[in-house]
Amino acid sequence: MANQTIVIIGGGPAGIEAAKGIGDLGYKAILIEKRDRLGGNPDEQQYAALTPDLRNAEEALNEMIAPLNENPNIEVMYNTLVTGAEGEAGNFTIKALQLGKEVEVKAGAVIVSTGFQHFDPGRETQKYGYYEHDDVITLTDAEKMLKAHNFVRPSNGEKPKRICFIQCVGSRDRRIGNEYCSKVCCGMSSKQAIEVRQLLPDCKVFVFYIDMRMYGYWENEIYWPAQEKHKVNYIKGMATEIVKKGDRLLVKGEDTTLRRPMEVEMDMVILAVGMEPSEGTKQMASIFGLKQNQYNFIETTGGALDTVSTNVKGVFAAGACTGPADLEDSVSQGGLAAMKAIASVRKAALATA
Amino acid sequence: MANQTIVIIGGGPAGIEAAKGIGDLGYKAILIEKRDRLGGNPDEQQYAALTPDLRNAEEALNEMIAPLNENPNIEVMYNTLVTGAEGEAGNFTIKALQLGKEVEVKAGAVIVSTGFQHFDPGRETQKYGYYEHDDVITLTDAEKMLKAHNFVRPSNGEKPKRICFIQCVGSRDRRIGNEYCSKVCCGMSSKQAIEVRQLLPDCKVFVFYIDMRMYGYWENEIYWPAQEKHKVNYIKGMATEIVKKGDRLLVKGEDTTLRRPMEVEMDMVILAVGMEPSEGTKQMASIFGLKQNQYNFIETTGGALDTVSTNVKGVFAAGACTGPADLEDSVSQGGLAAMKAIASVRKAALATA
Repeated sequence: MANQTIVIIGGGPAGIEAAKGIGDLGYKAILIEKRDRLGGNPDEQQYAALTPDLRNAEEALNEMIAPLNENPNIEVMYNTLVTGAEGEAGNFTIKALQLGKEVEVKAGAVIVSTGFQHFDPGRETQKYGYYEHDDVITLTDAEKMLKAHNFVRPSNGEKPKRICFIQCVGSRDRRIGNEYCSKVCCGMSSKQAIEVRQLLPDCKVFVFYIDMRMYGYWENEIYWPAQEKHKVNYIKGMATEIVKKGDRLLVKGEDTTLRRPMEVEMDMVILAVGMEPSEGTKQMASIFGLKQNQYNFIETTGGALDTVSTNVKGVFAAGACTGPADLEDSVSQGGLAAMKAIASVRKAALATA
Repeated sequence: MANQTIVIIGGGPAGIEAAKGIGDLGYKAILIEKRDRLGGNPDEQQYAALTPDLRNAEEALNEMIAPLNENPNIEVMYNTLVTGAEGEAGNFTIKALQLGKEVEVKAGAVIVSTGFQHFDPGRETQKYGYYEHDDVITLTDAEKMLKAHNFVRPSNGEKPKRICFIQCVGSRDRRIGNEYCSKVCCGMSSKQAIEVRQLLPDCKVFVFYIDMRMYGYWENEIYWPAQEKHKVNYIKGMATEIVKKGDRLLVKGEDTTLRRPMEVEMDMVILAVGMEPSEGTKQMASIFGLKQNQYNFIETTGGALDTVSTNVKGVFAAGACTGPADLEDSVSQGGLAAMKAIASVRKAALATA
């Protein structure tokens, strides 16, 4: 008899939505999470506000997570790391370590939703000096400061007067091996630019970019207000080097529109680091035998008309474990993966009935 | 007793995926389609190949549609136009005209997936002259020619030697009231640019753009190959006017990077027309009392973490009826909407049991 339980690995937005959907439809969902909390990157990295709606991230996530606790069909296994798997669609056995103790979980289908990790700017081949200069930070560092309503220069604790964002750090860059666009950094930078302008009206904010990837409503909901209402300055240009100049930072590069070299002084620089597959994503790909693309994200195999099926029957992938994804992508794919996983266990049950 | 049937209105990719999911899970799905075929815009507009995977559109759609015909849980009502609705979550009565005959359908939940229509370039305030110049065409006109493997100048039937795409026609434009970005036009233009270069190796292809919105894998899967392998020329600049010059077209505008006026002769110009809500989308919003945003798309009310719920309980919206969406968005949202619609009818059934 085929097993009707569905295991979801990774409790970020995609995994939460999948587990909720499965539970709501009367199927048993077991959500395996390595941390002691749900929420994935937005929680772990302490996002201040969501993109694009600027809603309080903690509040929005809590609202999303609450129904999981009330539904007896849904079990969350915290502090649990998947270490192995065997079997096939209808009958998987998943091995895991829960707080160091070996456990085994049986499932008819599996959804992998282990997400991404931010690019480590130490790997950047440009000379941005993330690990050398205190006042060079990343989007996630900035997010934490914005959440604490304490946006200051790490070097001296003072409020910055001039800051800039540098886009495409670890993205669209063949030299570091990531040719893809990370999709959300333009939106997240612009959102933060607005937040900084609101918090520190005297601080000038610049964004150095190649193309602003403000697709769909991000254009009118974030990009236009950032420019028109919040007076964020967008400059098409590449920054190639950051050096210290007195107690400030000198950003060197090229203004592409003015076609001339540029050297501008800044109090802080925020590197818009892109997405790479998380360690968990690479591990699950290996454990379940899932095809990975050249960037080690899990490859979905259905083309543009199927965003969640993988090369392994009964194993689905949702959210940023398959590539750059915004929150809306992750949640939508979580729903589709839940749907297809249930269909898969129903089919396996019929076949073995 | 609450009704467990789910009605899906609109048989494009989002609606097909939703109906399939609902049927696979053992619930009754009735898919109402105004045309005599499924497939939505990609079928009606005769798309040649899908973005980004360049797969044959007809083949991919047929593969997606086939399971609907084999599943007894799924009924497709062709040639049917929804004209009214009453009731509430658990008990909707939907009135429709099927080939002119009045019919009534009962449902516990409804998914609206009535999609978009392409911007009519006759409304463009720039002087592009779509209705004046034979050789000024739109993305959808070009798609039809590519599908027929007959990409020629409409004015004289000859193969073009120089063509250009003009991006953001009807998008990112306050004067015509569409401030949003239509999300897919950069990808679709670049895909067509590659196809033209493959079909007509002697034809030079230019793309005039503001930002190339090649998010995620579109960057490495389409944008880089377009430039490196297929030698498509991308020029950051705005075209403001197209006039006849002999038997060719003179495109006037500004090259933003070179910061100088530009006048270039072209054999054909392809206007990258954006998305607007379809008539069906506006009608369904009105019939079901769904909130619309300032652009008349259906507004989803759950923020970044819920892409399909509307202000009306039991009515969900998926795909481009909610705003600019690519195929992957549409299909993922179709799955999530199916999931939430089933959860909704289950809940209504429990409440009235």
